[in-house]
Amino acid sequence: MIIKNQIRPGAYYDSVVLMQLQKGLLALDGVLDAGAVMATQANRELLEQSGLLTDEANKAGADDLVIVVKAKDESSATDALNQIDSLLSKRSAGIDQEFHPHSLEGAVKALPEAQWVLISAPGRFAANVAREALNLNRHVFLYSDNVSLADEVELKKIAQSKGLLVMGPDCGTAIINGVGLGFANRVRRGNIGLVGASGTGLQAITSHIHQLGGGVSQAIGTGGRDLKADVGAITAHQALEILGRDAATRVIVLVSKPPSPDVAAKLLSAARATGKPIVVDFIGYPPPARKLGSLNFATSLSEAAEIAMELLVISNWEFKRDHLPITNYYLRGLFSGGTLAYESLLALQATLSPIYSNSPIHESQKLDDPLKSKAHTILDLGEDDFTVGRLHPMMDNDLRLRRLKQEAADPEVGMILLDVVLGEGAHPDPASELAPAIAGIKKVKPSLEVIAIVIGTDDDPQNLNQQVDRLTESGVTVFRSVTDAVNHIAARFVNHPPSKYPQVSLDSFTQPFAAINVGVESFHASLISQGAKSVHVEWKPPAGGNEKMAAIVAKMKAKK
Amino acid sequence: MIIKNQIRPGAYYDSVVLMQLQKGLLALDGVLDAGAVMATQANRELLEQSGLLTDEANKAGADDLVIVVKAKDESSATDALNQIDSLLSKRSAGIDQEFHPHSLEGAVKALPEAQWVLISAPGRFAANVAREALNLNRHVFLYSDNVSLADEVELKKIAQSKGLLVMGPDCGTAIINGVGLGFANRVRRGNIGLVGASGTGLQAITSHIHQLGGGVSQAIGTGGRDLKADVGAITAHQALEILGRDAATRVIVLVSKPPSPDVAAKLLSAARATGKPIVVDFIGYPPPARKLGSLNFATSLSEAAEIAMELLVISNWEFKRDHLPITNYYLRGLFSGGTLAYESLLALQATLSPIYSNSPIHESQKLDDPLKSKAHTILDLGEDDFTVGRLHPMMDNDLRLRRLKQEAADPEVGMILLDVVLGEGAHPDPASELAPAIAGIKKVKPSLEVIAIVIGTDDDPQNLNQQVDRLTESGVTVFRSVTDAVNHIAARFVNHPPSKYPQVSLDSFTQPFAAINVGVESFHASLISQGAKSVHVEWKPPAGGNEKMAAIVAKMKAKK
Repeated sequence: MIIKNQIRPGAYYDSVVLMQLQKGLLALDGVLDAGAVMATQANRELLEQSGLLTDEANKAGADDLVIVVKAKDESSATDALNQIDSLLSKRSAGIDQEFHPHSLEGAVKALPEAQWVLISAPGRFAANVAREALNLNRHVFLYSDNVSLADEVELKKIAQSKGLLVMGPDCGTAIINGVGLGFANRVRRGNIGLVGASGTGLQAITSHIHQLGGGVSQAIGTGGRDLKADVGAITAHQALEILGRDAATRVIVLVSKPPSPDVAAKLLSAARATGKPIVVDFIGYPPPARKLGSLNFATSLSEAAEIAMELLVISNWEFKRDHLPITNYYLRGLFSGGTLAYESLLALQATLSPIYSNSPIHESQKLDDPLKSKAHTILDLGEDDFTVGRLHPMMDNDLRLRRLKQEAADPEVGMILLDVVLGEGAHPDPASELAPAIAGIKKVKPSLEVIAIVIGTDDDPQNLNQQVDRLTESGVTVFRSVTDAVNHIAARFVNHPPSKYPQVSLDSFTQPFAAINVGVESFHASLISQGAKSVHVEWKPPAGGNEKMAAIVAKMKAKK
Repeated sequence: MIIKNQIRPGAYYDSVVLMQLQKGLLALDGVLDAGAVMATQANRELLEQSGLLTDEANKAGADDLVIVVKAKDESSATDALNQIDSLLSKRSAGIDQEFHPHSLEGAVKALPEAQWVLISAPGRFAANVAREALNLNRHVFLYSDNVSLADEVELKKIAQSKGLLVMGPDCGTAIINGVGLGFANRVRRGNIGLVGASGTGLQAITSHIHQLGGGVSQAIGTGGRDLKADVGAITAHQALEILGRDAATRVIVLVSKPPSPDVAAKLLSAARATGKPIVVDFIGYPPPARKLGSLNFATSLSEAAEIAMELLVISNWEFKRDHLPITNYYLRGLFSGGTLAYESLLALQATLSPIYSNSPIHESQKLDDPLKSKAHTILDLGEDDFTVGRLHPMMDNDLRLRRLKQEAADPEVGMILLDVVLGEGAHPDPASELAPAIAGIKKVKPSLEVIAIVIGTDDDPQNLNQQVDRLTESGVTVFRSVTDAVNHIAARFVNHPPSKYPQVSLDSFTQPFAAINVGVESFHASLISQGAKSVHVEWKPPAGGNEKMAAIVAKMKAKK
């Protein structure tokens, strides 16, 4: 048994070509194992695990192509290495042999109706190709990963300012006007539109929808990082806006890993602003409730599909996109029950941002000083700090009444949320103290909305009905659960100002799909097999992948 | 207008007494505002906010009682301060004037059938009272907050070793045999048992159950910190075990803030081991699915009640507590789809622990070296690290096939989980490469279970049915969604060894409720009004609240 290798420094090869080279070597007589990879550290470690790492390969760098052959004897190994060039020159099966332009510009001339550019070139080159595509006023589907966050933000801002879309980087999947881009399942056309920061998430949900007899209008990918705070979900916001306008879309599914609280709140507000029923599957995001206004929270990909199908049945309504209230005041929650405060914060953070608490869910929500509220605030007045040498606020209303006056006096405050917990051990008649205080406050500030969550039973010693009546008479809106109260509040705070950027034209989603493909050839073949138009660019990295040289070339181009 | 104050250094007063003093002062002629608090920093800041903080009060310490009066003139203020002693000596209304023992021992003699001690003495004294109660072989309901974590762990370990229960510290609520302890709503007796690390959570859910026409068997509080890693959910485990044995309990509800992954996995395994249907509301915990075996995940307190009621209807089964498989091997998941990996990890972490990943949900799950699995591992082979200069694993199976062999060769591995994603762009026939490799592995290691999640549609170019058939023939168990696969896997891993500690006697939950109350008198009054037996201890802190003196007294007692 012998291991031999060949190193090709600074060489660029398409990864399909490398896979085919490796398979070609493995098929040769006497070859036991083979590897053909760019010598990144990860790839060298993988070679080592397979027992294929030679000393020479171990010294190679990320820009070097390493080809290793393990063979039963010296001559088989030498024979195999001699075949490399002929194996590399073979075109992949199924790809046509027709003329391919060598540049994006050439491709645009060849297929001017192509509104989309699919880019799967290696990450370090991909951003520049995308920039070129945006300059040519084309939408970008950026399959490539290993693109920097800074590049992503820049590309998306350019796109946004031009009414263009950048799906990706690291966008695996989209279905535009019935045509699958990248990895996509063949599914029925239909009325469910999807926005996904997750490729296999979109694949799983669209497949489940198809399985359940439904169909897909559009599935727009955003790339996995779109919902990070740095990017601010630019693409997801555009996609929601598009699906909101798209008449064929009657239910919208939003799938992603959990975003930061602020990004989530803005995105969910935007989703509500579409006026259409929404299914949210922020995988790993604690749902604020099963349902919050038009938002329906799924706990799994398959359930997201199921809920979307159910909503389709009941969503034969006129969508109302306008008349959304823009609320510019703050909510203050003054709770005696810690869990009621926590559940309220959990649910309210889905639409209110920024929101603070002395018992925060995220570190960023921590109130510096529990004695001073800021922005939206949810206070647990039963927290340890407040109860040293003092009765619990469920028994003693003093602390809460003082804070109530303080909050009401704040001109930024427009809504106050209280809990009133009845039962054994609690204050014998909380409404007798709360109601007059609230009535007094509302006399001075009639615009103030006061909401109470009353927890109790008709057997409780305080007389539930009397408590509710007393509160209602003083102008309090009473709910019997956190979820009901939050639903009421969230409806007041659907703050989603219209976008100041140009709209993405719906034409790109309704005209016959035509694209330019840069990178993995099989994506081009896939478009053709789906009946779409596509031009594949015979792309090579600038200066053959040599980055210093590429920079010089780019400078020279710019000077022209 | 004038503000006057009185400081009583090192004085101990019950917080009910202080509230009544403050209310008494406020009711006096000419008094505009008043405060009567122990001068902790928080309380001094609160006085300041109310404009009641005098220079002298500002210099007082946490052990000093500060009484402040704001009056319209000098004489009203002086009059008010002169009333303090008479106001302090008033007993609270509604409390009987009969004899009260001054010690726990005395109370036990007065009411020997009392199996429960309710403690609401101030936090710094409460742990010692609880220790005394446990020494007297009584269960503890520890309402007090501001008890140290170390004390909590010690008390719970003592209790556990004696078959006793410590509910708390900071336990607001329980319902034992129909009697509410602390803050509790009056609800119907019934077949829903609850375990809650959250007082108002228990109140809200039990109230909602009552509202829906259902009833409660037992509601066992644990205190808010019980599910933290340091405490390890000792009380919650005991409570689940009790409700598992309790014939009257047919559905169990578990409510808490989200525990750490390891605590959650153990607790959910214990919950499944009861054999009864479980409703889980870990408020803010992302549900692994809507339903996982007998576990049903709620997204809100009101929904927890609704699900419990639904389960009651369908749970007329024989509970099977025994015959749980004890699985001692590991699962390795090798995914091509990032989101499928992530959703699987999310769902599996609910029952498998420890579990690691190169794309972890919690920092503690991060795999040091993606090339080496440990314990249970979920790998996303499409992560950036693996895809530099290499095709995505959805197109190229090479990496996954190598890793598959590596994992199967690990003697600790008993189960392998794969995803197979079909559709445009993906490998044209993944089963043709995976199936023979798996068949080969299973020939060598027949005990290895291989599970595949196949995502695709009947229109996909790979021929879905053929792919599934091919995999099935090679010995793979095929599922069509992550949730279905996880349900299958979770059923294999219900590892819950029987407790090695003495069982808590069910008698304490079925005999007429009798208790000893130490601290807030109104809790005693509440027990009496509910028809329970109770003895209130006329408790004073040792050495009048002077801690140095108390330590000396304790030492002397110990020497006796």
